[in-house]
Amino acid sequence: MKIGKQTFKIESMPYISYTSSIVGPKEAQGPLSSFFDTHINDVWDNEKTFEKCESKMLKTCINNLEKKAKLKDEDIDVIFSGDLLNQCISSDFAIRNFNVPFLGLFGACSTFCEGLLLSSIIIESNLAQNVICSASSHFCSAERQFRMPLEHGNQRSTTAQATVTGAGSALITKEKKSSSNARITYVTPGKIQDLGVKDMANMGAAMAPAAFNTIAQHLTDTNRDIDYYDAIITGDLGEHGSKMLHDLFELENIDISKKHIDCGCIIYDLKKQDVNCGGSGCGCIASVFSGYFFNELSAKKLNKILLVATGALMSPISSGQGESIPSIAHAIAIENEV
Amino acid sequence: MKIGKQTFKIESMPYISYTSSIVGPKEAQGPLSSFFDTHINDVWDNEKTFEKCESKMLKTCINNLEKKAKLKDEDIDVIFSGDLLNQCISSDFAIRNFNVPFLGLFGACSTFCEGLLLSSIIIESNLAQNVICSASSHFCSAERQFRMPLEHGNQRSTTAQATVTGAGSALITKEKKSSSNARITYVTPGKIQDLGVKDMANMGAAMAPAAFNTIAQHLTDTNRDIDYYDAIITGDLGEHGSKMLHDLFELENIDISKKHIDCGCIIYDLKKQDVNCGGSGCGCIASVFSGYFFNELSAKKLNKILLVATGALMSPISSGQGESIPSIAHAIAIENEV
Repeated sequence: MKIGKQTFKIESMPYISYTSSIVGPKEAQGPLSSFFDTHINDVWDNEKTFEKCESKMLKTCINNLEKKAKLKDEDIDVIFSGDLLNQCISSDFAIRNFNVPFLGLFGACSTFCEGLLLSSIIIESNLAQNVICSASSHFCSAERQFRMPLEHGNQRSTTAQATVTGAGSALITKEKKSSSNARITYVTPGKIQDLGVKDMANMGAAMAPAAFNTIAQHLTDTNRDIDYYDAIITGDLGEHGSKMLHDLFELENIDISKKHIDCGCIIYDLKKQDVNCGGSGCGCIASVFSGYFFNELSAKKLNKILLVATGALMSPISSGQGESIPSIAHAIAIENEV
Repeated sequence: MKIGKQTFKIESMPYISYTSSIVGPKEAQGPLSSFFDTHINDVWDNEKTFEKCESKMLKTCINNLEKKAKLKDEDIDVIFSGDLLNQCISSDFAIRNFNVPFLGLFGACSTFCEGLLLSSIIIESNLAQNVICSASSHFCSAERQFRMPLEHGNQRSTTAQATVTGAGSALITKEKKSSSNARITYVTPGKIQDLGVKDMANMGAAMAPAAFNTIAQHLTDTNRDIDYYDAIITGDLGEHGSKMLHDLFELENIDISKKHIDCGCIIYDLKKQDVNCGGSGCGCIASVFSGYFFNELSAKKLNKILLVATGALMSPISSGQGESIPSIAHAIAIENEV
């Protein structure tokens, strides 16, 4: 049922039955290290290119998910996946290895939540039973595509974020399939927001208004306030974008800072790991949710979360042509059934 | 209800209530000219770049759709859209102008059918009433991104296709909203097929196996034979890929050639318009369906069609790294209610 202006109540409340996560070497040295299922030891992982490495990482991630769930390809109705690379080649080449219908998404760093949203809808429609949602990113493939080849050794600005090398996958099911009680209850697809930010080294500033818009609309539509949730989790606003989100809510007399956690700010030790403003990329929220937050839900340390992935919908070509950075955010309410 | 291995029966049978189409100057001189709603007079349309022109074309297309349907932004639950450009900037910047939730897709030239499929599912789930599905492409933006800048004036191989400059949009609705009786009854999402074709100037060969796989699976799942349909319409196999599709079916003792129409083969006069093997691009099936075939359905010249968009899921980077071209096809059964 659609409630309010922009939110869908998912009556079937699909289960997040299993998740799988994989990260790169730097992420494996960060504070969340112990929560990730596995990691690669270097940014190549025996592949000849960063792009092939990213694709392999995503393939491994989905393979591990199927193993955990003891499901085979034929048990999966559809895979939703996306990434940051041109023409989403990480997903295309990873999912070539699975004999499962594939629906490719592009939502930049919002992709993982876009996938969770569509997974929920297809289960709500009663057409599918088991759906996989996944996303990936890789620091080195993203740097050379969006910014500068690493070989340039160029200095990064203080507002820049580091693309996470990592992937995450979730198995969304109609029936309860595991000990997980985490269910998707509401989803709020976002509208594009563009306040004119043009700085590709300041994605947090471009995306914060989208996060604000979707979270505020979700709360209005569901008639909930932020205290309803144990945590409101964004994907990759970074330190700077997070501060902007707090400021935007403060204008509405809401202190979101007490509830807000940004995956980009917790995946690294921001003081020690030389990542400037924090992590970013499709793989950031995908790996941190699949690794850390799913664990916290399972352990009942968190019981009600709002997961909000933001995406900056630009390309180096659009920025080169003087365009600003349109952004979007999709919100997913995940609640443990009691 | 899922039927067979891979097909969803859409019980709510959503209506394709309105469509909107726009094409470039070359397409407006082709055989289907009179069926398109509007066209641009040159490949710039007063914009400074091809990318901006493509985005504007898509924006115009969706605006025209809303006008035809007498709907405003707030009446639309969600827009699905995608294109060929890196990070889908045509869609991102077009849909920035609409105050509607946006879900971005990447399926290369399969995008329009991926959008129709997801539009059907969201209506089947009872969450949405009115959904827009759209896609675009532009010859000049695609050439310089995927092949060579036009200024090179390089010769194109005989198996190469010409990316269609055009866009199409469809309004998919739960209720009957117009005189159109065209309803979506079954959808079959595709699995990635990759038979090792590496030639970026021969997309038809890469995509024909995907079309074959999805069409054959659709017929098996629905227990229909090709005679059930008045036409089986592919997006952009071109002449060469179409012949391969016919050959693949011939191995199964099925003569699909009598039912098969390829949008890429009919949008241009292949003998006179210097397009080699035919048209291609997301905008090909989007504009030809929205312009020509929707008209044929409305006029009851066709009553049962299977619309199959194929996509080549590679990038110049993956091809440069020696990869083959993974392909996919999604099939949508559209039937006039009698």
